[in-house]
Amino acid sequence: MDNDKQMLSNITRPSDIKKLSDSQLYELADEIRKTLINTVSETGGHLASNLGVVELTIALHKVFNSPHDKIVWDVGHQVYVHKLLTGRYDRINTLRQHGGLSGFSCPDESEHDTFFSGHSSTSVSAAYGIAQANKIKGNKNYAIAVIGDGAFTGGMVYEALNNAGRERSRLIVILNDNDMSISKNVGSLAKHLAVIKARPSYFRMKAKTEQTINKIPLIGVRLSNAIFRLKTGIKRMFYKSSTMFEDLGFRYMGPLDGHNIEVLVDALEGAKSADYPILLHIKTTKGKGYNYAELEPSVFHGISKFDIDTGEFRASGTSFSNEFGSVLCNFAGNDRRICAVTAAMSLGTGLDSFERQFPSRFFDVGIAEEHAVTFCSGLAKGGMLPVFAVYSAFLQRSYDQLVHDAALQKLKIILAIDRAGFVTGDGETHHGILDVPFLNTIPGVTVYSPTLYSEMRNAFMKAFYHEDGVVAVRMFKGAEPSLPEDFVPSFEDFDVYGDSDSDIAVVTYGRIFAEAASALKILNEKNISVKVIKLNKIKPVSVNAVKNVLDCRKVFFFEEGEKSGGCGEIFNMMLTENSFGGKYYLRAVEDKFVCHATTEILLKEYGFDGESMAEFIQEVLSDE
Amino acid sequence: MDNDKQMLSNITRPSDIKKLSDSQLYELADEIRKTLINTVSETGGHLASNLGVVELTIALHKVFNSPHDKIVWDVGHQVYVHKLLTGRYDRINTLRQHGGLSGFSCPDESEHDTFFSGHSSTSVSAAYGIAQANKIKGNKNYAIAVIGDGAFTGGMVYEALNNAGRERSRLIVILNDNDMSISKNVGSLAKHLAVIKARPSYFRMKAKTEQTINKIPLIGVRLSNAIFRLKTGIKRMFYKSSTMFEDLGFRYMGPLDGHNIEVLVDALEGAKSADYPILLHIKTTKGKGYNYAELEPSVFHGISKFDIDTGEFRASGTSFSNEFGSVLCNFAGNDRRICAVTAAMSLGTGLDSFERQFPSRFFDVGIAEEHAVTFCSGLAKGGMLPVFAVYSAFLQRSYDQLVHDAALQKLKIILAIDRAGFVTGDGETHHGILDVPFLNTIPGVTVYSPTLYSEMRNAFMKAFYHEDGVVAVRMFKGAEPSLPEDFVPSFEDFDVYGDSDSDIAVVTYGRIFAEAASALKILNEKNISVKVIKLNKIKPVSVNAVKNVLDCRKVFFFEEGEKSGGCGEIFNMMLTENSFGGKYYLRAVEDKFVCHATTEILLKEYGFDGESMAEFIQEVLSDE
Repeated sequence: MDNDKQMLSNITRPSDIKKLSDSQLYELADEIRKTLINTVSETGGHLASNLGVVELTIALHKVFNSPHDKIVWDVGHQVYVHKLLTGRYDRINTLRQHGGLSGFSCPDESEHDTFFSGHSSTSVSAAYGIAQANKIKGNKNYAIAVIGDGAFTGGMVYEALNNAGRERSRLIVILNDNDMSISKNVGSLAKHLAVIKARPSYFRMKAKTEQTINKIPLIGVRLSNAIFRLKTGIKRMFYKSSTMFEDLGFRYMGPLDGHNIEVLVDALEGAKSADYPILLHIKTTKGKGYNYAELEPSVFHGISKFDIDTGEFRASGTSFSNEFGSVLCNFAGNDRRICAVTAAMSLGTGLDSFERQFPSRFFDVGIAEEHAVTFCSGLAKGGMLPVFAVYSAFLQRSYDQLVHDAALQKLKIILAIDRAGFVTGDGETHHGILDVPFLNTIPGVTVYSPTLYSEMRNAFMKAFYHEDGVVAVRMFKGAEPSLPEDFVPSFEDFDVYGDSDSDIAVVTYGRIFAEAASALKILNEKNISVKVIKLNKIKPVSVNAVKNVLDCRKVFFFEEGEKSGGCGEIFNMMLTENSFGGKYYLRAVEDKFVCHATTEILLKEYGFDGESMAEFIQEVLSDE
Repeated sequence: MDNDKQMLSNITRPSDIKKLSDSQLYELADEIRKTLINTVSETGGHLASNLGVVELTIALHKVFNSPHDKIVWDVGHQVYVHKLLTGRYDRINTLRQHGGLSGFSCPDESEHDTFFSGHSSTSVSAAYGIAQANKIKGNKNYAIAVIGDGAFTGGMVYEALNNAGRERSRLIVILNDNDMSISKNVGSLAKHLAVIKARPSYFRMKAKTEQTINKIPLIGVRLSNAIFRLKTGIKRMFYKSSTMFEDLGFRYMGPLDGHNIEVLVDALEGAKSADYPILLHIKTTKGKGYNYAELEPSVFHGISKFDIDTGEFRASGTSFSNEFGSVLCNFAGNDRRICAVTAAMSLGTGLDSFERQFPSRFFDVGIAEEHAVTFCSGLAKGGMLPVFAVYSAFLQRSYDQLVHDAALQKLKIILAIDRAGFVTGDGETHHGILDVPFLNTIPGVTVYSPTLYSEMRNAFMKAFYHEDGVVAVRMFKGAEPSLPEDFVPSFEDFDVYGDSDSDIAVVTYGRIFAEAASALKILNEKNISVKVIKLNKIKPVSVNAVKNVLDCRKVFFFEEGEKSGGCGEIFNMMLTENSFGGKYYLRAVEDKFVCHATTEILLKEYGFDGESMAEFIQEVLSDE
């Protein structure tokens, strides 16, 4: 056992923390930081946010009794410390690896992980539900939501605070204010919090103010009466900080130093004794304790492996995100109607250079995907060409707005969907395997699924200048796949590759066309001739693509996404409607959530790699 | 022309209002009220909310220039007055009728209707988008959002205010505060607004306060300095009203008398000259000018035909909503874990008696469907059995929460989906034809679609005690259909009705099973034998139901819902996977939004009535 880590290795459950002295807790914090930096430098993951909550997590487990008291971590990538303190230290090196620890809060992994949480702004709703259940059952347990200032821009938080603030419950909301969300937090709430931060702590100030007021001699009658009558008013005057949360019915405590364990423990004990909903506002430094991360916390948000001594990452090549960013800048340079909208993901979606070049047409709306889509509808109504760049998994949040505010309005909104398909490392909450099914349900939406950068560029050109209504362009994480040299993209609604006279057809789209091409090669080597239909426009599916395979004996559809409601089922329906007489086989993700692993592993696991495809086809053919 | 209505008949465009004198405007208001009451007593529709915005709508069109200035009406059922003033007076008697005026804001109908809006809390986002587009284009037009206090509980509003408050734009948000949303508004925001309403108007108060402060002699130095330094602070002390909106970056004006046209015109002119985002808070009386509606505004919210003199409605019979309400009370009486959650729709979803009988287990969360689902997840995590009663069209708002916070968590949440299928009168935004497709995309969700009350009861029994995970029970608006006497429900996953040996099968579910049964009768009379498979559990579809029709020559699937991603496509896929050799025909709503009309008309229009079904089947058979 590493000498440095003797404390951590002795903590097998949260109650072990309760025995430690204050100075031991700080030693523990040091050990945790070293472990975090070492681990993430090897596994990749979320570093800066975890470094920021070391002391908070220690204090939480010192004061509360998990799992009886339930801690709900908003956007659960800040749970590495929590994992270290709840019996998972010995497996921390398996973080985000296939079969290893999840990079997010994961109830399947530990009774101390209350909820899966990869999407933002859900924690207060969930914790309030738990608090109400506790109340109904008559037990005295606490529900604690830990949420960052970035997640606070999501409307669900406001819905939950508005609902929860109206009556007593053992609910504690901890606002972890680190002065940034993933991108720079640009909304008004951020300004509001900035004002709070400039002030001395609530408690000290409160005492002084009350003394001062008590000492005032008689003054102008009207004002004096007003002051004493309006207690909340005067409190607000001095503690601007508290207004908004108290308007919503919460007792406000803060802002407190989130790296001072004693202060945190005191405050949490105070919050425990309150018996009404508490909002505890703490201030932390993202990346705390690791120089490079403190200096550039958003670079060290979600990261790949890095060199601890230099803070340098492995060089990464081109990616769809970056290529999209420069494609969009090219279009926007020539068309002043083009706007870019992001929900706090400027960097992740490749919009950083657009932001610099076209600041008046760039909008970071905060973590607010619902608003983002309807805002885009407004921009479109006003004659703009808005592009909402968003991760597939987060676009789920905008389903109703896509239906009601975009598609129904017949407004042209372009969705630049990033992280479509499997995504390495993040797991259940981050795979982009539902966007095709849910976009399929919305009348009038058009969806492109390019394989190559050049096709992506072409898809945006069509989206801007040839299509109507909502148009989505799906892009995978990482670089374009390498394709056989004899494949030449047609830039039409679909491509035909391989033996166009074959009576065996493979139909697919997106990234795994590269796998289908390699399956074709394997099969050709075994003297099995195949044609591959690569769909480029997947909604609506071209009738001509369907007609192209009508005479085939066997049609195999491979779909890197959920089967139910996906393209493969629709293709089958179209075959049926066109009196297809052959056999149809669909391989897709069948009604399940997909765990964390690398994309390569997942493609193999779900049978979407070239070898698996070829094997499947051979098996079917040999059964004849 | 009716003498009473000479003013209205002369208004063919909004600019006609600008010529009228103040007293003429009040005469106009009177005419409008009479017209509203007369019209809605004949057509049904939304009365109370429209009576509340008569003066506001007049003032808006007096001050602004629609359609250059864009008015976005939140939950656009408050637009009848707007329709009367924008050239649609002569067609107001066609309101909500097939081919007539829509009961909501409808851009297809008039250039003065900016957005379709049947779902709540979208207006600020849309108007802000328009305001930004105006700014980019450099024009001086205004974007105005009109939103009720009920819609203000939706998180999108907060996301939009947080985003819009950060910079200048010609955006005006009018908070129409009528002290109620559709149900009683129970969140903290309502309390906050209630406090505001108890105070004298902002403007009068503001003037007096400034005088008072200016006259104060020197007082205790600390306090005096603090007061003068913290201008916003002192303003807050006196105008608690302004805090929350000003924290979000808006200039706040109000509260004002929303029935005083001069006051409104002055305030709107003031707002126009501001050049930064304005929140104008007005106070109105829902149902204003019609006694019965003022006394019971929530009864007169969305209504059927009524007698003007007595305020009485045509008696309505039983309904799924009411039957559900009493079924739920029965279960809840025996099981203390059962909770009911509504998003401000207690009455509409039949929860009113649950609310009275089990107040500690009843939760009205405000118009906050996202929060509602995640809150239910929290309740379930805490050991409760939460039932979220919600209209199909509004459940769309919870898609991501259903995926991420319910299904992925493997928590048992029960969705009591009301208004499934077509809904009379309300049109595009209210039909429940997407819930089946979007629930189909979510792994692990179970969906029941009963036809009869007894089946509905059975479905809830299974949901509570036999199923795992998210379970939805879909209910139609209105009463159970009458079925042939020889149909006896099996309460299994599917029923077989008619000639079980027939090689012609009809597959369907829900309400239109009654139509399929009458189609069967028509066909039998023509000596065509048919069996009807009535699916009760539609997700997952029973493999046995599929196997039951495998030997059929022809299978017809009828689905009162969107085709893409619906049950019919999945049934086809299952047939394919089970080597079905016959022909399959699917009739559903094909990739379009459905207009307003009665359910009867729509069933006929889309070919779901018995006669159309029989005709379709005969046609196919005669083509053989």
